[in-house]
Amino acid sequence: MTQDANSYVNPLRDIEDRRLPRIAGPCGMVLFGVTGDLSRKKVMPAIYDLANRGLLPPGFSLVGFARRDWADQDFAQIVHDSVREHARTEFREEVWNQLAEGFRFVPGDFNDDLAFDQLRRTIEELDEVRGTGGNHAFYLAIPPTFFGDVAAQLKEHGLAEPQPGSWRRVVVEKPFGHDLESARELNEILATVFDSGSIFRIDHYLGKETVQNILAMRFANNLFEPIWNSNYVDHVQITMAEDVGIGGRAGYYDGVGAARDVIQNHLLQLMALVAMEEPVSFDAESLRTEKLKVLSSISAPPRLDLATARGQYAAGWSGGEKVIGFCEEEGIKKSSTTETYAAVTLNVDTRRWAGVPFYLRTGKRLGRRVTEVAIVFKRAPHQPFAKTATEELGQNAIVIRVQPDEGMTIRFGSKVPGTAMEIRDVNMDFAYGGSFTEASPEAYERLILDVLLGDPPLFPRHEEVELSWKILDPILAHWAKKGKPDQYPAGTWGPESADAMLARDGRVWRRP
Amino acid sequence: MTQDANSYVNPLRDIEDRRLPRIAGPCGMVLFGVTGDLSRKKVMPAIYDLANRGLLPPGFSLVGFARRDWADQDFAQIVHDSVREHARTEFREEVWNQLAEGFRFVPGDFNDDLAFDQLRRTIEELDEVRGTGGNHAFYLAIPPTFFGDVAAQLKEHGLAEPQPGSWRRVVVEKPFGHDLESARELNEILATVFDSGSIFRIDHYLGKETVQNILAMRFANNLFEPIWNSNYVDHVQITMAEDVGIGGRAGYYDGVGAARDVIQNHLLQLMALVAMEEPVSFDAESLRTEKLKVLSSISAPPRLDLATARGQYAAGWSGGEKVIGFCEEEGIKKSSTTETYAAVTLNVDTRRWAGVPFYLRTGKRLGRRVTEVAIVFKRAPHQPFAKTATEELGQNAIVIRVQPDEGMTIRFGSKVPGTAMEIRDVNMDFAYGGSFTEASPEAYERLILDVLLGDPPLFPRHEEVELSWKILDPILAHWAKKGKPDQYPAGTWGPESADAMLARDGRVWRRP
Repeated sequence: MTQDANSYVNPLRDIEDRRLPRIAGPCGMVLFGVTGDLSRKKVMPAIYDLANRGLLPPGFSLVGFARRDWADQDFAQIVHDSVREHARTEFREEVWNQLAEGFRFVPGDFNDDLAFDQLRRTIEELDEVRGTGGNHAFYLAIPPTFFGDVAAQLKEHGLAEPQPGSWRRVVVEKPFGHDLESARELNEILATVFDSGSIFRIDHYLGKETVQNILAMRFANNLFEPIWNSNYVDHVQITMAEDVGIGGRAGYYDGVGAARDVIQNHLLQLMALVAMEEPVSFDAESLRTEKLKVLSSISAPPRLDLATARGQYAAGWSGGEKVIGFCEEEGIKKSSTTETYAAVTLNVDTRRWAGVPFYLRTGKRLGRRVTEVAIVFKRAPHQPFAKTATEELGQNAIVIRVQPDEGMTIRFGSKVPGTAMEIRDVNMDFAYGGSFTEASPEAYERLILDVLLGDPPLFPRHEEVELSWKILDPILAHWAKKGKPDQYPAGTWGPESADAMLARDGRVWRRP
Repeated sequence: MTQDANSYVNPLRDIEDRRLPRIAGPCGMVLFGVTGDLSRKKVMPAIYDLANRGLLPPGFSLVGFARRDWADQDFAQIVHDSVREHARTEFREEVWNQLAEGFRFVPGDFNDDLAFDQLRRTIEELDEVRGTGGNHAFYLAIPPTFFGDVAAQLKEHGLAEPQPGSWRRVVVEKPFGHDLESARELNEILATVFDSGSIFRIDHYLGKETVQNILAMRFANNLFEPIWNSNYVDHVQITMAEDVGIGGRAGYYDGVGAARDVIQNHLLQLMALVAMEEPVSFDAESLRTEKLKVLSSISAPPRLDLATARGQYAAGWSGGEKVIGFCEEEGIKKSSTTETYAAVTLNVDTRRWAGVPFYLRTGKRLGRRVTEVAIVFKRAPHQPFAKTATEELGQNAIVIRVQPDEGMTIRFGSKVPGTAMEIRDVNMDFAYGGSFTEASPEAYERLILDVLLGDPPLFPRHEEVELSWKILDPILAHWAKKGKPDQYPAGTWGPESADAMLARDGRVWRRP
């Protein structure tokens, strides 16, 4: 932890942090890939929002690095436009001006030694004039193929090695490899340059309030944990559905597909939080211990043909508009076997979860955009009612709505008003927005602040990444043998084979 | 059950009963005490509402009996006015006209033999012209002191004894006695005239949708029952608070008081439903078995001075108006020791509830009108959070809102949005009104229909009444020795001694 007693406290600091002022000490960030979507839509706005909330040190600096012929002012203009368009909090001139004084730009290629020399001098200058104290995070918002080059350059130019009493950290984004082997290679490359405590892998789902709330909800309360096991839970459904297609991401998406893009990281992390045992505390080590335990207990059933399903969206309708199929998208070959929908059945081989299937699914061009975790409970073991009374009663469920419409729903049976005993499902609702006056920070605000504070609990470590690939690899290998995925019309809820997969277990997917 | 295959089905019948058409067969009712509040505000409107919903037979008849010099039309006018003022459903001429043809009035005193003779002839005439088939319920909406006289007259004039294939039933209202001894006497009087299956004691709380829903919620679901025991529940609070004073009821209320008026019946019945084990089925016998089991397990702690509190409202404010104290009300002596507020601690000596106190309280001129059952849970046995994270976290609770604003609330801890882990209570809500399009019938509709159908599950039997007095008698005896109750200003939440009672256990009353 670099947070020290004389952290600068900005009077504009948001009320939400009044109880535990988590304010970054002196530091700066170097951003690789400043022209990409990730930088423009997420990283730059989050930095402004953090500054605006008073959570960055007054001398915070941001160095852009890219193959562009830009001066500092040009870079500042790029950041400015990004902030005006995407920042969550209101634009304040005084905050912007203070922040922008710390902007620098270094033009160059990833294998341009002179550029990295200049980067080193820039950082030293900032330590001098902005008081960043030698503390810098290198944010690699670039394709993973370049991680090796950049890491090597950082090492070679002495940028990865902090002076005593200061720190250097590296931030990488998914995909963390393409399979177990490539993930291991990637981890090894980073490990030659940075020690494991200085590598921050961002899975932005873990920065979401609703995802962090899974732990608060499970372990701060006495209501849920007693029924959070195979005695009471029938199965769990974890869904991340998108209504959009691949858009302009053909180059990235083709050959990757839904399982690598979403299940390997977001959904398996969600599953780990839902299924894990209570950690001793919320420090990174205790959390990681529990996540590793559960990830290493997860496996797919042996018959992968019965336990998985995959699909490719065909032409159809989305949001009232006719849309083209995946294989008609620009940059995608007609013969592409990349799946845009993936569903898998996973078991957790622990005493708590034995016999409770976890169904994970994700897809593009589905009915609507929604991410949720649904814990579906067994029926009451005995119903002392007339049979007709419970005809329309479903199974109890706790649904954690990750996005949008963040919150939680409990579905249970209640008596229908009237002079007969008839029981029907009702929903009980908690909406994050309606219950708190505090605004939810963006996931990237939380995660970037954590990087600057050196606070690791929300970042998956390489062991977690590798265990996730270990779960997925056999499924990917099984699919690779099968050729073309099943087709589903855009705007529907995936291929029939996914429905059949649950029907074999006597269950149905939720229509969220 | 008198409901038979050829029950008349009215096409106007409400949609809420489409699944189980519970329609009374041929029958009529005789109403004693037609000029009282109960008849005018509850019984008469409920009869109209039932007719309007098509749940009464077309030839239903209603005979009024009172010491008034009325003709049938005068009685019909009284019913008409009551219906226009108090009925829940819309007034429809055709329904009214059909119903009103069955109205008769018999003038007379309770010890007027000629009047009861005339009553017998009237009933016979109705069987003839309205097809009531000899089935009649006698509704004693009169003070219990007259139950004996009326019962004796009914017996003497052959009114209590049904012809083969028909039925006679008697309906009585609380108070079911003044203590165990008087309750037994009352039960014996009724038992000499009617068999126990023909005596219907109305506790109108049991006719409320939200009260019946306690059983649906507990036993139709798998979410609640696993935590419904002393492993997880810290204590239970059952509250019936009124904002009004005694109004014009000094004659009834003085010498009775809050405990006899409310705890003996409504609150102990609520407690029995909350605490009982799952019945084998919902028939009257199975339900009664479980209620008797739990009522016979309830006892007050030995130190009644510590485990109970009582109060009398003093002058104060109610709804923005200055109001007088109980002992200044018309008809109440300054020296009255009748309590207008009562709170008791009760234990349930079963494996499920050992060590979980049930706190029952009721009072007049309290902060607002509300009846609720709050199951308050123990804190999570271990909180893997920083201490500051859970500083503002209360205990989990499930609150069943009996009235008004019928529904259920679950209170639990959720992460406060922000970059720190802070957990605060949030409420999850289910509102009866918002979840069902069906309108809730009045408790009296349900209960009167059940009387006419001969459906006994919602009516307390004499054993339950006697067990309730057995719980209350020692407390009443203890209070009787103590003289004047503690004073509390009108509009507050009762005397300080009630807060002290919970404080001794390290707990606080909810402010609902």
